[in-house]
Amino acid sequence: VARSEPALLAWLARAARGLGGEGLGDDTVHLAAQAGLVATVDTQIENVHYRPGTPLERVARRLLAVNLSDLAAAGARPRWALLSVSAPASFDHRRFFRGLLATCRSVGVHLVGGDLARSTVPTLVLTLLGEPAVAGRWLGRRAARPGDALWLGGTVGESAAGQALLALGASWPAGRAPQLPPSWPLRGTLARAARQAIRRHLDPQPQLALGTWLAGQERAATIDVSDGLALDLARLCAASGVGARLEAAALPASPGFAELTSRLERSPRALQLTGGEDYVLLFAVPPEVSVPADHDCRRIGSITKGKRLELVTEEGIEGLPAVGWDHLAR
Amino acid sequence: VARSEPALLAWLARAARGLGGEGLGDDTVHLAAQAGLVATVDTQIENVHYRPGTPLERVARRLLAVNLSDLAAAGARPRWALLSVSAPASFDHRRFFRGLLATCRSVGVHLVGGDLARSTVPTLVLTLLGEPAVAGRWLGRRAARPGDALWLGGTVGESAAGQALLALGASWPAGRAPQLPPSWPLRGTLARAARQAIRRHLDPQPQLALGTWLAGQERAATIDVSDGLALDLARLCAASGVGARLEAAALPASPGFAELTSRLERSPRALQLTGGEDYVLLFAVPPEVSVPADHDCRRIGSITKGKRLELVTEEGIEGLPAVGWDHLAR
Repeated sequence: VARSEPALLAWLARAARGLGGEGLGDDTVHLAAQAGLVATVDTQIENVHYRPGTPLERVARRLLAVNLSDLAAAGARPRWALLSVSAPASFDHRRFFRGLLATCRSVGVHLVGGDLARSTVPTLVLTLLGEPAVAGRWLGRRAARPGDALWLGGTVGESAAGQALLALGASWPAGRAPQLPPSWPLRGTLARAARQAIRRHLDPQPQLALGTWLAGQERAATIDVSDGLALDLARLCAASGVGARLEAAALPASPGFAELTSRLERSPRALQLTGGEDYVLLFAVPPEVSVPADHDCRRIGSITKGKRLELVTEEGIEGLPAVGWDHLAR
Repeated sequence: VARSEPALLAWLARAARGLGGEGLGDDTVHLAAQAGLVATVDTQIENVHYRPGTPLERVARRLLAVNLSDLAAAGARPRWALLSVSAPASFDHRRFFRGLLATCRSVGVHLVGGDLARSTVPTLVLTLLGEPAVAGRWLGRRAARPGDALWLGGTVGESAAGQALLALGASWPAGRAPQLPPSWPLRGTLARAARQAIRRHLDPQPQLALGTWLAGQERAATIDVSDGLALDLARLCAASGVGARLEAAALPASPGFAELTSRLERSPRALQLTGGEDYVLLFAVPPEVSVPADHDCRRIGSITKGKRLELVTEEGIEGLPAVGWDHLAR
């Protein structure tokens, strides 16, 4: 019985030696060089990844978005999707497919195949294949070097705040603005921050254009933040054999985020570092590289020698534990 | 709410025009010509596709086998697999993966990536990618012409008989022979037929070598029988714009199959025509083509002009309804 994901993945990497099974721990995998493709697979399950009653077009859009974010981090242009839909008789397949097809259209993905089955729990699995966005170039986690600048493609922690609001009764009906929890009569900046957090959770915006720009750079190490900034930074650093120093004060936050987290009785910093499901790119590039302003990125630290992950706060420098979302933890 | 698979797929083909969504009705899909790959996805869900308590290495082997059968029908050589495992804490991931990796090894498939999630219902989704087994050649359903001989790569109906035995309490423990239902003290031919049926259900043998041979023929239309012979024949004929005449007496059956179905109070012919999950290849080739004996195929009829599907029995000729397994029917 697997009680933690890292332990299972380590076992699997040994068991699958020579068979590629180590790829189960990565977000994307390269098919053999002659195929020139990357692939990724992600799952959305009712009551695990989304709450019952979430409009199915949003579930579909999110399913594709989390896969697209993996391809963005690989510097890939998405091309083909295969879908498995397992769901009960009451599941509105057409509504789900309408949302999926609209999103496929908007990013040029062809839904080429799939499988339908009955199940008591709606379980949606999408496999996405992509080609290099820049011919002959792939991005990965291994290229970070000491001295590199560490950048983040957007805010982190908002998605987790949005999830907390949804757990309190917030919703986002189809065709309307996000609705705050009935017991939360918020106004002004706070209300806007809450709606924004709900949007960020339910409608992640995969950074494909940023991935394409990064693929055109001479050297860049990239990962998408899905399991929390601290854990995904640790993965990038481990793959590159480097450490990192993160500046807490540099972490971007939307107006009202601190107030919102205080209303949620959550630490804004904990949400930023470990909240997860942010789907923004975290990347390391040589310090002289200037990132175009239109990608709205923020420099948040540096890559260091050694393997230590450090967080610089107003109180000094502390170790940054590699904790975040474990897909198998109970 | 989708109440039948054909209706949903027809709707989807319209909704997805230009986006490839029609591929959801096919077993395999071709990625764009420049990629030179076919892809397929299949799902195994506890209590839907297999009974609780089935050894997980068998579930894994079957998951890969049903995908391999799709690739065999496409004339493809399997290369890469991506896996999504959604399961409760009690699921023995390592046992499942051991079975999957052993089967991957035996057919040269690289398990390149995947996704793990918690769910109350074990739901296993495998996407399999393949290359042409014969350079530049793919098999499909569209190549049948009037006058072709219709062939079957093995027996049909045994898998459904095996499923019925499992429902009655049969089992196939790891490392042992299949066990008959406790209330069924069978002997001799009947016991052997029952064990064989259980094996056929739990351990399908995808006909990759036959698919490779067919890909080398000048013209062949191929489908794998997964939803029942009658329905899959109807699909092949519809795709080719032809009819077919099936000789009931020519359908291959193992020794003891008729006796076994009689004990199960099931019609042997109904199981053969609509039982499903047989995972043997059904194919049409010009009548002068001689199929090598080592593939153990049987000629079962002919392709005809028009769109009628007919069954020739000892009582005459009757229409063959295109009925079989509907993945969404209740």
